[in-house]
Amino acid sequence: MDRGGRLSTPPIRVDFGRLRYFIALAFETVGMPPADARVVAALMAEADLQGSDGHGVIRLAQYLKRIRAGGVNLNPQIRVVQERAAMALIDGDNGMGHLVMKRAAELAIEKARIAGVAWVGAQWSNHAGPASLYARMMLAHDMIGLYFAVGNANHLPPWGGLDMLLSTNPIAAAIPAGEEPPVVLDMATTVAAYGKVKAKAARGEMMPEGWMIDREGKPLTDPRRAAEGFLLPIGGYKGYGLALVVGLLAGTLNGAAMGKDVIDFNQDVSSATNTGQAIVAIDPAAFGDLAQFKSAVDKLVRDLRASERMPEVDAIRVPGDRSHALAAAQRVEGIAIAASLMQTLDRLAEQLDIPPLRTN
Amino acid sequence: MDRGGRLSTPPIRVDFGRLRYFIALAFETVGMPPADARVVAALMAEADLQGSDGHGVIRLAQYLKRIRAGGVNLNPQIRVVQERAAMALIDGDNGMGHLVMKRAAELAIEKARIAGVAWVGAQWSNHAGPASLYARMMLAHDMIGLYFAVGNANHLPPWGGLDMLLSTNPIAAAIPAGEEPPVVLDMATTVAAYGKVKAKAARGEMMPEGWMIDREGKPLTDPRRAAEGFLLPIGGYKGYGLALVVGLLAGTLNGAAMGKDVIDFNQDVSSATNTGQAIVAIDPAAFGDLAQFKSAVDKLVRDLRASERMPEVDAIRVPGDRSHALAAAQRVEGIAIAASLMQTLDRLAEQLDIPPLRTN
Repeated sequence: MDRGGRLSTPPIRVDFGRLRYFIALAFETVGMPPADARVVAALMAEADLQGSDGHGVIRLAQYLKRIRAGGVNLNPQIRVVQERAAMALIDGDNGMGHLVMKRAAELAIEKARIAGVAWVGAQWSNHAGPASLYARMMLAHDMIGLYFAVGNANHLPPWGGLDMLLSTNPIAAAIPAGEEPPVVLDMATTVAAYGKVKAKAARGEMMPEGWMIDREGKPLTDPRRAAEGFLLPIGGYKGYGLALVVGLLAGTLNGAAMGKDVIDFNQDVSSATNTGQAIVAIDPAAFGDLAQFKSAVDKLVRDLRASERMPEVDAIRVPGDRSHALAAAQRVEGIAIAASLMQTLDRLAEQLDIPPLRTN
Repeated sequence: MDRGGRLSTPPIRVDFGRLRYFIALAFETVGMPPADARVVAALMAEADLQGSDGHGVIRLAQYLKRIRAGGVNLNPQIRVVQERAAMALIDGDNGMGHLVMKRAAELAIEKARIAGVAWVGAQWSNHAGPASLYARMMLAHDMIGLYFAVGNANHLPPWGGLDMLLSTNPIAAAIPAGEEPPVVLDMATTVAAYGKVKAKAARGEMMPEGWMIDREGKPLTDPRRAAEGFLLPIGGYKGYGLALVVGLLAGTLNGAAMGKDVIDFNQDVSSATNTGQAIVAIDPAAFGDLAQFKSAVDKLVRDLRASERMPEVDAIRVPGDRSHALAAAQRVEGIAIAASLMQTLDRLAEQLDIPPLRTN
């Protein structure tokens, strides 16, 4: 599962509860209220559980650094600043994005139960981990969830341009099924995520054409030259348009950062990011019979899986299959933590004077 | 402007009013109520005006054929079958899609004015022309419009598969600006639309790699072999996921056709298509000050346009620029109708015994 394993020692397995406990304890050492620390820790551990490992415990050190630098408000007054029957705008007061978006999702569910559909936007939020976490929150309520966010660093110029004005603004959607696992899409609007480029560089491999271009618009395939070029949006100008529209809906509409106002949270750890996100809850029961809807999703998913396959394709997958299977497996076997990440976490535990993850 | 012009005679220009009159008259000859004919004709002429010429008057003969074959209900009882504060489900009663979606858009605007956001789905609708037409309807009301639809023929297998189970399900978004033109995105979830493949074949040109693949998954570049392969979704499996999610939202959620139930309306002219579409209206005034929102959109758009450019790029474009400029120009110069299409329309006028478009 873990690509790092091929180069070095195999990953270490820790169970969900231990990972959550470790993360919560780490946040408490920098002054996060324990109840909030538990919420953030559970969401970060869930990210690792489902294989969104670029958005789980790997971010812990970065979050702690930002908190220490005063870049995040540990005692935010998260509050609704605009509200109608089918919408709300939440001011996150620069709190942890996980807290803001969990609140947004809960409010969207509550409103959608009455109005049928509800859209909740957030301003003055922060990085909240993988998009799918929040879209998935609707599933337990038999609702459809959609999520849009402005990324926390600009990696894309407008199509044909050279100025980095857009982020890889992600889209997530979660649709409940009956007997089949839910359909869960979680995608950045670029062909490859920046993390995949870094992974290629670490392994000394070249990138395929289509991931990045240089400043002349020519294919860039050497990941060590990544800083000289740009990620390519999916479908060229189409992905540029999608990234822009997602940013307008999740950022501009909410009075949150977009374009030039986006702060690169890798470089700047102390300024408030004013991250914008939006979540939509749709109640299929408002549209008709819920059981009928779910069995229609089941039928569609089964028809897709049963499709004749191209040579050398072992199975037709539906969005969410991989994360669903991985979460189920890691719930039993424990969550795989790469050996190198575990070493980093060991040092972090020592600095924070908390029990290390590997033995806690 | 018109690519056909390079091979043959230049296009013929007709003004918007004359085109609309011609289309309306044509529909009246097959029994469409005059008021409905005027509505459909205005939307089709608007499609041509903005350069969505694959969805304008070029579809007239196909629509008439379907109407004559009993495939469309000329006297539909378009009615709301499910309703909450922020949503409605409309049963189009197999009427023209243009009538159904205009009604859906009007209802969404009305509801969003109160609820802040509204989502209106349609079942038993039909092909309604370009997605952007309906998203754009929100602009006059200072609202954001989103539109999703299930396409009327399956051109895509699931990723890695061979069975055509998905259409190029389009997405449109329209966002009002202040002094700048609105941002209007209208995109299929495939790299190239099928019409572009046909155009390449007609010109005897090869397609670039990335448009289509064959049944082995290898690049297919000869457009004459198009029937042996498939359109590629944008971003590979990402576009497959997007096409699926759009289909679930616009089709399955509305009890409309999706997957195996989609009728290829090029092949089958008499069966009801049960086309599903969805439209969302978002009132920025519910989120905060409208003027502030519009000026933030202006600023973002101007920052994008002012970006440093790659060599040989003449201008940075924002989604909607081309259609906006073309509509403005064609409102003055008239709408360009390709000479070959005009000949087809001449023959159609003769058959229907109505004044031909070129001299009406």
